[in-house]
Formats: sequence, structure tokens, C-alpha cells
Amino acid sequence: MLKGNLIVGQSGRPTPVINASLAGVILEARQHAAITGIYGLVHGIEGALKEELIDLGQESTETVELLVRTPASALGSCRHKLSDPEYERILEVFRAHNVRHFVYIGGNDSMDTCHRVSELARSTGYEIQVMGVPKTIDNDLALTDHCPGYGSAARFFALAARDTGRDLEAMATFDDVSILETMGRNAGWLTAASALGKETEDEAPHLVYVPEIAFDEGRFLDDVDRIHRQLGRVFVVVCEGVQDAQGRPVGKHKLKDGDSDAFGHVLHTLTTGVAAYLSDLVNEKLAIRARFLRPVLIGRAMSGCVSETDRHEALRVGKEAVAQLAAGRSGLMVTLERVSEDPYTCGVGVAPLTEVANAEKLLPREFLNDDGNMVTQEFKDYALPLIDGPLPPLARLRGVRVPQRVMVLRKLVG
Amino acid sequence: MLKGNLIVGQSGRPTPVINASLAGVILEARQHAAITGIYGLVHGIEGALKEELIDLGQESTETVELLVRTPASALGSCRHKLSDPEYERILEVFRAHNVRHFVYIGGNDSMDTCHRVSELARSTGYEIQVMGVPKTIDNDLALTDHCPGYGSAARFFALAARDTGRDLEAMATFDDVSILETMGRNAGWLTAASALGKETEDEAPHLVYVPEIAFDEGRFLDDVDRIHRQLGRVFVVVCEGVQDAQGRPVGKHKLKDGDSDAFGHVLHTLTTGVAAYLSDLVNEKLAIRARFLRPVLIGRAMSGCVSETDRHEALRVGKEAVAQLAAGRSGLMVTLERVSEDPYTCGVGVAPLTEVANAEKLLPREFLNDDGNMVTQEFKDYALPLIDGPLPPLARLRGVRVPQRVMVLRKLVG
Repeated sequence: MLKGNLIVGQSGRPTPVINASLAGVILEARQHAAITGIYGLVHGIEGALKEELIDLGQESTETVELLVRTPASALGSCRHKLSDPEYERILEVFRAHNVRHFVYIGGNDSMDTCHRVSELARSTGYEIQVMGVPKTIDNDLALTDHCPGYGSAARFFALAARDTGRDLEAMATFDDVSILETMGRNAGWLTAASALGKETEDEAPHLVYVPEIAFDEGRFLDDVDRIHRQLGRVFVVVCEGVQDAQGRPVGKHKLKDGDSDAFGHVLHTLTTGVAAYLSDLVNEKLAIRARFLRPVLIGRAMSGCVSETDRHEALRVGKEAVAQLAAGRSGLMVTLERVSEDPYTCGVGVAPLTEVANAEKLLPREFLNDDGNMVTQEFKDYALPLIDGPLPPLARLRGVRVPQRVMVLRKLVG
Repeated sequence: MLKGNLIVGQSGRPTPVINASLAGVILEARQHAAITGIYGLVHGIEGALKEELIDLGQESTETVELLVRTPASALGSCRHKLSDPEYERILEVFRAHNVRHFVYIGGNDSMDTCHRVSELARSTGYEIQVMGVPKTIDNDLALTDHCPGYGSAARFFALAARDTGRDLEAMATFDDVSILETMGRNAGWLTAASALGKETEDEAPHLVYVPEIAFDEGRFLDDVDRIHRQLGRVFVVVCEGVQDAQGRPVGKHKLKDGDSDAFGHVLHTLTTGVAAYLSDLVNEKLAIRARFLRPVLIGRAMSGCVSETDRHEALRVGKEAVAQLAAGRSGLMVTLERVSEDPYTCGVGVAPLTEVANAEKLLPREFLNDDGNMVTQEFKDYALPLIDGPLPPLARLRGVRVPQRVMVLRKLVG
């Protein structure tokens, strides 16, 4: 292990447990004498560019322990796409502070950043060890069984769909259709998770639409109409990133041409979102009352629905990153490796940053039914342990009917 | 106490704990020999009209205990406004089933229904005891310190605003403004609750807008602009029912004239909601990136954020309703009466249905600051015990800056 300072940063969209990984890095770093100082990047890689670093060695144990239960990125995050001169600037700052270990907690863009810092350092002869820590509610990183952050956001959506499904059921004589929008650019992992609390055909959600399956407005309306006729209510979950067979985001005509984010990803979200668009469509075409639910950030921040399994694993991958550095390794991302299903046990491993960076793991086809609008048992087996599932049970009244009397009375009278 | 069957129904919009009140009614009813059968109305008063009753005496103890932890209305709910002949039909059904006790769990419209059933029975010489059980996340019932259901929805919004506020803070170099929409037709209780996790000026929410204070678009934009200049981010919470000085719902021009619900309440919600409207306004007028969060039903159904105080009180008012019937009383609603603040203790009482029905308790002016855009300590003192507050603490890094070196190096070189 190189001797010098360790720097850690958080990148991309926060999760409810990304700070648990930060805590893991800090706690483990304190165990190694070769790590002379622990610095944090303020707002990720932007903190390196601006040389805004904080001394994490000065944080109390109490604060570090509280980090494990604190949602969002305590160091601040960023979504900045680096230019070549900026990579050089980063290395200049790292060198000035004798940074010999760089841990970056983030998604695939961050793993790419990590890798490029490592390559540039090598080419300029500056010795530094880099290690990636996976983080994303989207669960779309390659080479890891799942991603820290996913379990908690998945638990939120599983609870939200099940519980608001009960609400819709209770209001079935008044409300018709609820459409819940989940996050996910290209991958439907969170959308699928909304079905983890579903136990019977009648229960919510009735339909889930993911980006992996081409979305067809006509089929969607048929699906909704059919279930509405059957049950008198329909609970739909739709991913923000759903696309039609031509790869166009649903309701794209409401978007300005060529809108994209800093990484060049095409923006798939309408101003009011795809659920609002589909809700209008149902109102208009089927003439039944539809409403949309759009929790957005709440699903990725809510501390009240965290999966303890997820929290524990987030802490663990943070610790493991430093343990790997201590073992002299570099250029890797820590991974989660499922050991067994029942009981669920999970180990840690590593994967080369190059293989993770910019790769994307989509929902396998066998995790969806033939129609592509509901999850399969295979998906549930995969995801339930990640959300501390099964969810706490709810009551269902037996509902034994009391025999009608007024009609009988009337008949007697008549 | 009259001898005969008891009938219980749930009405209006569900809450996360309305089934705890139902469980309280069933558990207590089983203690009284004069109550010969316990029937449930399927979908509230609509169940009486259609003579759809279920025999709650046949539900297992396990189911009844699980009801305490089950969100939404297990019996089904309704929002049906009764006509005069329908009241007569209800009494006909009650008489045919020898119903001598009617417990209705609901908001102010339900208390009116309860009262009118009682009056009609009296005028026709049919002996029946009626009792109302308060329920509403809106917290707008008169003569009770607070309403079961409010504490849990309030806890959801307090957590949601605090946690997504942390998310916005983490993403401050990327995101600018988040606007969270809460429920509430005329009363800002839930909107105010979103500030219960706020500890410092800098923390979310920065602005709350309630229906009790006339909304001015110009002032709103000034508020947002001012805070954005100060902090680089703004977290806004707005009630769906905000109105301008002329009493017009904000963004009303997007509504069709005269839209109203079954009770004749004017609909205040735009198709996409007021938060979406204000978010567009901020994007357009201030040219900063705004997004809206619209959890809607999630806030009133989520079982993951329930306040245990609220759950306990919901159970208690259900039991108390039957205890009051057993003591021979009628024509009343059970109320919650705060006994002391620190420690928080709360007793139960009763209030005449006539005084509760169609009355509405708005947020007192002293619960808001002079500008009317933030809550006061008085509100926090009132509401914190109801959400099991204070919320679990979060970490805040001390953030001791590491001295900059690269600039210094450059200066030396220069």
C-alpha cells in the first residue's frame, strides 16, 4: 500500500445509503497507518477542480456513525463531465496534497472518471491507487449482483405501490386509475421493484412498463381498459425512461428536439413526466379518471423506508474499498457477489473499472412475463432479499357477506 | 345501551391508520354483550344503500390485530353525497338488520351524515345510537386537538421534505429548485408539517405556502429568487389548495370553469397540480432549473412512515366510540384532548356531531411567521409530538477545509 493521503468523493444522484459507504471508507481508513490523512471532495470531482477539500479526519466518531443513517451525499455530489485539461488539473491537486488513494463512490460515469484519473496518473508517472465503490438506485452497474442504494429505493417503491394500491382499492367507487412514475433512464429495475409487495392478481400494481420493452400507446390503453373492466380499478407503474419501438421517449412530441444532459444522455423526462402524459391519455381516450403520482427525489432520499440489508451492504463496500487499497490493489470497483438465495448471503469481490465504466446492466427478459408488463417470480426471488422482503404483512378482511333482508322484505310485501 | 347489532363504516379519503380505528371498534364491541353482531359497511354509506354488509364478527383476532398496521380503508371507502330518499333507504336497511349502533369513521362530511341519520331515526321513532370517529390527514376537524391520520401523513411529509432537502443540497451544483406539493383543500396543516424536520435556516424547506395565506405569484418569485441568491438552492412546499387574494386557485386559468366534486367543493387541483404549474413559472420567469415532487396518495397511504403516536391514538378513538355507546351516549364524535405538552399526554373526550359537521379548523395565524411563508416554534411545539418527533437525527459534516496548496504553488511559480 502506498503511503500518503486518501481522498474520497461522492458522485451522481444520491441514494438513501451512499453515506453509509462514505462512513465505511472513513472507518476503515482510520485502521491503516499508511493512510496519513482522509480528505473529502466537496461536490465530487468539482471539489478537486476547485481544490475544495475537507479534512474527514476531524469528524467525530458520532458523526461518522450518524452518516450510516443519513440519506443523500453528505460531501455533496455533482454531475460534471470532465474535459482533458480538467483531468490534468485534478492530478495537479492530488499531487499537491500527496493523495495516494482515491476512492470514488458513484455509478458508471464515476467509474469511468476513476479509471481515467488512474490512467493519466500512470502515464505521468504519479503513483496513486484508485478504487470505485458502486452506488446507484438504478441498479444498472455491470459485474455486481446488485448496487447499494437499489434495495432502499426499491423498498420505497414496493411499499408505495402496495400501500397506494390499497388506497385505490378503498376508493374504487370514486377513483379509477393511478399511475406511479419511477426513476430509471434505460433500466426498469426500480419499476419492477414496485411489484415486490404484490401477492395476488388483484393487488397493485396491475401493470408495469419498463424501458427494456418497447412501449405502445395502443396496447397500454387496451391493458388499462381490460383491467378496469375486470376490477374497476387499475394501478400502473411506469418508468420515466420508457420508449416506443423506434426508441423515442413516450410523449416525445412534448420535448424540445435534442435536449440532453451534461453527459450527452438524451433527456427522456417531459416537464411534467411520462405518468402525467399517460394519465391525460387515459382520461382522454378511455374517459375514466386517472391520476399520476410522481415522488421523484422522495424515492431516492426517503430515510423512512431504508432496507437494512442495503444499508449494511453500502457500509461494507465502503470498508472493502479501503481494504483492497491496503492489499495494494488499484483500478478496481468493489462488487457484491450473491453466495446463496435462501438464506440470502452476499459476499464482496472486485471487477476491473474498465469493464464497469460505461457498461449498463438491463433487466433480463426472464424477469418479465411474456407480455412484458409484469415481473416474474425469478425477479422476486432476486430482489426480495435486497428490500428486507417480504414486506410486513397487511390485513385482508375475509368479508363474509351478511344475507340481504330488505330485498326479501320488499318481495314479501310486493 | 341499546341491544342489537353495531354497524361500522369508513368514509372519505383513507389514512395510514384509519384501520387502527376500525380495529379499535371491533375489539371494544366484542367486550359488550348488548352488541349482538358487528357488521361492516362495504364502501361506507354506499354499502348501506346497496345493502352490502360484511360480518366482522367472523374476522379472526389475527386479522383484527393486523388491521392496526394496515393502511387505507379495509372496508372500502366512498365519497358519496346522500340525497333525502337515500337517508330513508339507509334507515330501512339498518332497521331490517336490527342495527342499534352506528359508528362512522370519517371527516366532517361523514360527521354530517352521522348526524342526519341520527335525526331521521329520531323523527321516525327508530331507536339507534350513533357515534363519529375522527379521521383525516388534513387535520381540519373542529373541537378535537388533532385528527387521527394527520400525525402519520405529517411524518411522511416531514421526512420527505427533510430528506429530499438533503438531496437538493447534495446536488446544489446541478439542481436549483424543488417544489413539493402536499394535500389539503383549505387547510395548510400538512404543508406546515413539512417543516418539522427543519433545524436551521439553511435547511429545507425554505418556503411553505398554505391556503390560509393569499398566494401572490410575484411575491413567490421574489421569495424563490432571494433564497436562490443566498443559498444556491430553494426547497419549496406548496399546498394543493393555495388561492390568490380573490380566492381563485393558483393557476386557475388551466382549470375548466365550475369543476367541482360530489360535495360541491370546487376542485382546486389542476390536472398536473399546482407544484407543476409553479415549477414551470420558476423555469420561465427566473430561468433556473425547477422540478416538482407530487407524491399525492403516497403521503396518505405509506405504511413505512407511520407515527406510532398516531397509530395508538387511532386505535384508542375507535375503542372509545364503542365505550361511549356502551355508556348510553349518542350524537357525538370522539375527540382527542391534549393534557400536557412535555411530556406529551393526550386524553379523549366527545363533541356534539352538530358542532363538528361541516365546520373546518384552519391553521391559526400564530403558527405562521409574519410573511406567512414559514411555520413558527408554536406550530412545532403543537405538531412534533404527533409525528413521534423530533425525527431521527442526521449527520452534518463539520467540513473543516484543507488549506489550498495548488494556488500557492502557482503563485510561487508565477
